Amino acid sequence: MASWFKIPAKSHFSLANLPFGIISTKASQTPRVAVAIGDHALDLAALARHGGFSKCTALQASQHDVFSDSSLNRFAALGRSTHREVRKYLRDLLSADTAHADLLKDNAELQREALIPRDQVENHLPMAVGDYTDFFAGRNHAHNVGTLFRGPENALNPNYNHIPVAYHGRASSVVVSGTPLHRPKGQVMPPGAAAPVFKPAGRLDIELELGMFIAKGNPLGHPVGVNEADEYIFGYVLMNDWSARDIQAWEYVPLGPFNAKNFGTSISAWVVLADALEPFKTAGLPNEVALQDYLKENKKENIVDINLEVSLITPSGDTTVVTRTSSQNLLWSWPQMVAHHTVSGCNLRTGDLLGSGTISGSEPGTQGSLLEQSKGGKTPIRLQGGEERNFVNDNDTIVITGYAGSLEDGTAVGFGECVGKILPAV
Amino acid sequence: MASWFKIPAKSHFSLANLPFGIISTKASQTPRVAVAIGDHALDLAALARHGGFSKCTALQASQHDVFSDSSLNRFAALGRSTHREVRKYLRDLLSADTAHADLLKDNAELQREALIPRDQVENHLPMAVGDYTDFFAGRNHAHNVGTLFRGPENALNPNYNHIPVAYHGRASSVVVSGTPLHRPKGQVMPPGAAAPVFKPAGRLDIELELGMFIAKGNPLGHPVGVNEADEYIFGYVLMNDWSARDIQAWEYVPLGPFNAKNFGTSISAWVVLADALEPFKTAGLPNEVALQDYLKENKKENIVDINLEVSLITPSGDTTVVTRTSSQNLLWSWPQMVAHHTVSGCNLRTGDLLGSGTISGSEPGTQGSLLEQSKGGKTPIRLQGGEERNFVNDNDTIVITGYAGSLEDGTAVGFGECVGKILPAV
Repeated sequence: MASWFKIPAKSHFSLANLPFGIISTKASQTPRVAVAIGDHALDLAALARHGGFSKCTALQASQHDVFSDSSLNRFAALGRSTHREVRKYLRDLLSADTAHADLLKDNAELQREALIPRDQVENHLPMAVGDYTDFFAGRNHAHNVGTLFRGPENALNPNYNHIPVAYHGRASSVVVSGTPLHRPKGQVMPPGAAAPVFKPAGRLDIELELGMFIAKGNPLGHPVGVNEADEYIFGYVLMNDWSARDIQAWEYVPLGPFNAKNFGTSISAWVVLADALEPFKTAGLPNEVALQDYLKENKKENIVDINLEVSLITPSGDTTVVTRTSSQNLLWSWPQMVAHHTVSGCNLRTGDLLGSGTISGSEPGTQGSLLEQSKGGKTPIRLQGGEERNFVNDNDTIVITGYAGSLEDGTAVGFGECVGKILPAV
Repeated sequence: MASWFKIPAKSHFSLANLPFGIISTKASQTPRVAVAIGDHALDLAALARHGGFSKCTALQASQHDVFSDSSLNRFAALGRSTHREVRKYLRDLLSADTAHADLLKDNAELQREALIPRDQVENHLPMAVGDYTDFFAGRNHAHNVGTLFRGPENALNPNYNHIPVAYHGRASSVVVSGTPLHRPKGQVMPPGAAAPVFKPAGRLDIELELGMFIAKGNPLGHPVGVNEADEYIFGYVLMNDWSARDIQAWEYVPLGPFNAKNFGTSISAWVVLADALEPFKTAGLPNEVALQDYLKENKKENIVDINLEVSLITPSGDTTVVTRTSSQNLLWSWPQMVAHHTVSGCNLRTGDLLGSGTISGSEPGTQGSLLEQSKGGKTPIRLQGGEERNFVNDNDTIVITGYAGSLEDGTAVGFGECVGKILPAV
């Protein structure tokens, strides 16, 4: 599929992708909806203003203003079939053989207004997040961390293979890629000490995750069936669920992590729509136990297969790839997570964010946290330039990237980057 | 302090209270702001429309439309000093010796429109809840439950007296008093079984709590000091944090409760403003450990002293008071909870809801959960009419009430009721 518009080779944002985000520019500082295409953002508010959606049968004219919103929530709430049709329509507008050349391909003036180089664009949080829930579906991560804490025999808790274990996270501190975060302070209990001390977190870690945004909600008291859950999925982002391991170790019994996680969660700026990832569905990790009926899926291929990579950039600018892995390392699929979340009757709402949990492979260099890579802080990772890390230092930058398909043939469906820099504690 | 308006004896909603809520009526179904006074609601949107705030120097004319909102968020965000002045102004309007008799006291037509019997009013959720965080500050509860699980020697975890322990709860399923909830289904692990089963929760419990709403937020990365935290508090409600104990026992390791809690949390409809409770501040439970500086308060009287009562109404209509206790049974104050929540840099937002955790005394009949009262489901509670309960049955109704001060002399500052009925599982 070729575009009349110049899309660089190996771009994450091919014509097969068209992820949605919220942008502003220096010239026009009101946040609005755009799709990423190659090195550019296509401003959909500008496109709508100039009649660019006039041939889009999926939207009524009165709905074109969803692209002037400062979040994707209202667009997401229109439902999967509308997302599918709008994305198909935009792909046609950008295709070499578009049926509607007058709307954009042959309209140089509108191109100058609406096709903005992404390096001139500021990205904002794509969705207004209602609730944020983080799952624990990366079984290798659960196993690795459990082994560190309890030994290999008791690595997984008895409930692990039966329940898509999850906890409620903090929605207010979900930030878009590029937002720096301060190292949190908190209480930690030093080994052998008689009393806790208050200090900047010493074991600041990353968690490589995927995030999923909910398109439409369910009413309180009405669970979503696992085989209907696809209709509730809007799209996906990369996620870094920053974790202060020393704060976590002292605070987490019995109610789970709190200050260790609530100082910030970074997500990538462009939401890759569920439909763009349909061709890359595959099976996740096998599960040996007999599942409860509410978790049984009609199809096995319900994990999206995404190549994931984490880099650490030191303050002096040396970049080291510390993790290469795949999202196939998930035990639970997104529909299973949705079904489990709602089986109690819990209501989901448009814009809710679900995290996969940390994604780790089983080999060295494939783990999604530094806690695993450094074996609990005992075996430092060697970086380019000669430095070492057990955990994240001040002024380190973490970059997560990910894509499905092939970067070589111009059909990649990628996420761009999820970037976060850790500033010194306040 | 006397009112020209008839306030029944022993009313929770005296002239010393004036709690804020969101109402609608059959005649006017758009939700809007009101205060409760005696058996009536004073419709502030109607009052504003008819110039009733024209002498209120705390609000500019352009701000009067906050009372037409469907939540209290925009009013709350105006800050403590505005809440204080507006409440004082409304108290004057309702006082026998009001300085502005023409605005309401002598305006029979406006009284007919704006003073609505509360039994003709529908209450809505008072705030749009951003994030909901539940603390664990009721030390007797923590001790009682810990004793059931681990014996009296290990009742409290080592972190308990050092940290205001908390977890992130589910905001979407916070419901206003009167909203029925279905008994959740979920996975439970029967004692001695080889595999979990999926069934309606068998050990459905209540948790008697206070809730606190945040008035103004703090920027991400900027903690709120414990001695500045009062300015961030809007007001308080009664809360029932429903808990499915059998689901909780199987799911909660290692990340905390999830489906056991996320099917619903009930709150009372009227937010009692922080200023209305200032006269009732007292010290909470003593804490023997040396506190970290960020938790040290300049004044010791930072717990509001509220008489609390829980009743269970059986399907056949028999009512039994199962709990009588006081909110003095909290180890941590609200400013300490705010300081701890934000010490990592976590940002609070207007409308965030913080729960105290279950409030229990140490004597029989003072515990805020049935788990404690029935000693883990082993010693049933005897009810009026002869029935027994270890936990909540289908079609049972739980009513929490609470007030500060004296009901006898017309100066009570009360919460009304927090009512929830459990319907059978779907």
